[in-house]
Amino acid sequence: MTTRLAVIGCGLIGESWAALGLARGWDVSAWDPAEKSRASLPERIIRPLTHLNELHGWPISTAKLRVTQTLEEAVEGATLIQENAPEQVPLKQALYADIEATADARAIIASSTSALTWSSLSGTLKVPERFITAHPFNPPHLIPLVEIYGVDEGTLTRAEALYRELGRSPVRLKKEAVGHIANRLASALWREAVNIVAEGIADVADIDTAMRDGPGLRWSVTGAHMAYHLGGGPGGIRHYLAHLGPSQVKRWQSLGTPELTPELCERLIDGIERQAAGRTIPELENERDRLLIQLQKARQSGRNDHG
Amino acid sequence: MTTRLAVIGCGLIGESWAALGLARGWDVSAWDPAEKSRASLPERIIRPLTHLNELHGWPISTAKLRVTQTLEEAVEGATLIQENAPEQVPLKQALYADIEATADARAIIASSTSALTWSSLSGTLKVPERFITAHPFNPPHLIPLVEIYGVDEGTLTRAEALYRELGRSPVRLKKEAVGHIANRLASALWREAVNIVAEGIADVADIDTAMRDGPGLRWSVTGAHMAYHLGGGPGGIRHYLAHLGPSQVKRWQSLGTPELTPELCERLIDGIERQAAGRTIPELENERDRLLIQLQKARQSGRNDHG
Repeated sequence: MTTRLAVIGCGLIGESWAALGLARGWDVSAWDPAEKSRASLPERIIRPLTHLNELHGWPISTAKLRVTQTLEEAVEGATLIQENAPEQVPLKQALYADIEATADARAIIASSTSALTWSSLSGTLKVPERFITAHPFNPPHLIPLVEIYGVDEGTLTRAEALYRELGRSPVRLKKEAVGHIANRLASALWREAVNIVAEGIADVADIDTAMRDGPGLRWSVTGAHMAYHLGGGPGGIRHYLAHLGPSQVKRWQSLGTPELTPELCERLIDGIERQAAGRTIPELENERDRLLIQLQKARQSGRNDHG
Repeated sequence: MTTRLAVIGCGLIGESWAALGLARGWDVSAWDPAEKSRASLPERIIRPLTHLNELHGWPISTAKLRVTQTLEEAVEGATLIQENAPEQVPLKQALYADIEATADARAIIASSTSALTWSSLSGTLKVPERFITAHPFNPPHLIPLVEIYGVDEGTLTRAEALYRELGRSPVRLKKEAVGHIANRLASALWREAVNIVAEGIADVADIDTAMRDGPGLRWSVTGAHMAYHLGGGPGGIRHYLAHLGPSQVKRWQSLGTPELTPELCERLIDGIERQAAGRTIPELENERDRLLIQLQKARQSGRNDHG
C-alpha cells in the first residue's frame, strides 16, 4: 500500500513537504484554506521537485498530487498528516480537531511548528499520543534536519521511519524546548553577531563573510561539540575542558546581549542592503539553493569516498 | 622579486602557513625553538601541500622551504613574518624584539594569535605600525578566513593583498576584540550547545547532527545576518526586525549560560566518545579535512555556475 502524506497548509513549508512526498513516490493530498494557495501549488511545486531531482535523482512528477477542496478530503486515509499553519495556537488547535474527526486511527499528526512546543499545542487533542512536533529547517526540501518531539515511543519510531523515507535526518528531542535545538543555536549565534555590530567590532557583511569562509564552512562538517574535541589537541575535549574550560566560561561572560534599538536595527538593515548589493530576495534564495545542492552532493561523495 | 614568508613557530598553524607560501611559489623560511619541530617540518608539510594540490591544483614542492637554525636567519629579507608561538604575552613580545632587530623596515609582523589582542601584544614594539594580528581558523590551509586587526592603513592594505595571494579571505576588524569575530561566534554557539546538554533537551551527538544537517549546512552558504534576511519573507530583515525582533529578544533571554561543573563536563566527554564511536582524533581530522576539500570544491563550482 502506498504511503499517503496529507499536507495541511501549502505555503513554502507545505510546498517542500509535498515535493518530498511526490519525489519518493508517495500519494500526496494537499489542502490550504486559501483558494489562491491551492491553485498555485501544482505550478510552485516544480521548483522543489527540480531541486530534489538534481540533488538525489528523484523523479519530477506531480501525477500523485491531489489538491483537495476540503481538509477532510486531504486527511482521509493519510498515513502522515503534516500541519504547516501560521504559528497561532487556537488556529492550529482548530485544525487538529477537524483532522482528528476524519483521520485514520493510526495516522500520525505532525506540526511543522518552529516557535511553539508540543505541550502548548496538544492540550485539546483527543489522542495526544499520535501528535508530534516535527520541525523542518528552511528550505525544508534542501536541509535534511527534522527536529521531533512527542510522548509516545511507537508514534515517534514510526514518524522517524517515514521521515527517513523522505530522505530527512530526524533528530529526537529528549525534552521539549522553545526553538527546539537548531533555532536555539541559530538564535545564540545571531545574538553575538548582532552584538559584534552593536559594539562596532565589524560590519554585517564582514561578519557574514567571516562565518561563511570560517567556522560556517566547518559547521556543515563538524558540529559545535566535535569542533572543541578537535580543538583540544591529542587530548581532545577532556583536555580542552580541563585546560581551556575556565577561559571559555570567561569568554561566555564577555559576550553580549544587545538591545535591538531602532538605531541598531537601521544599522543591520543597512548592512544587509550593502551585502545584498542589489540582489533581490528571490535571487539570494536562488544562489543559496544552488550552493546547498552543490554542497550536499559534495558531502555525499565525500562520505562515500571514505566509506 | 619573490615574496618571502618567514614562519616563526612550526606547529600545526605554522605548518599550514608554510604550506600556503610554498604552494603559491613564495620563498619560505621557517624557524622553531624546538629542534624536533624544525626537523619534522619538511615531512609534515607534505600533508597540507597535498590538500592544497587537491583543492586548488597548486604544485606540491618543498624546494623553496628553508628551515633555519636561528630566528634571525628566518626573518632576514622576509616580506611577511607570521608568528605562531604559544599564547603567552611575554614570550611573544620577546620574539618580536628579536624579529624587530633583524627584519627589513618594510616587513609586516603578523601574529596568528587566537586569544590575545593587538593592544596586549604591541606595547613593546619599536614600530607597532607594522604589527598586526592575523588570526587564521583551524585547519588554516583549508579554511580561508584570516581575521585582521592593526592600526596602520598601509600595513593593513599590504597584508590583505599578501593573504589574498595565499588564497585567503581576509576580514578586517574595525575595533579589536577578544576572540576577534569567528571565535566569539563559535563561543556563543557552543555556550547554547552546552546549555542544551545541561538542560537535558538533547545529547551531544544529536546536537551535532542537528547542526550538520540543519543550520550548519546553511552557514557555509548564508551568514548569520543574511539567514534572517532570507527568513523574513518578501520584506527581508526589515520585516523580520519589525515583526519578530521582540520575540527574538525574548528568545535571547531564554538561552542559557551553563556552569561547566565536573558532572556536566563528564556528560560532554561521554557524549563525544559516543559520537566518535571509536574513531581517533587523527581519523576524525582526516574525515573533516576530506569533507572540507569536497565542500570547497563544490562551493567554487557552484559559484562559477552562476557567475
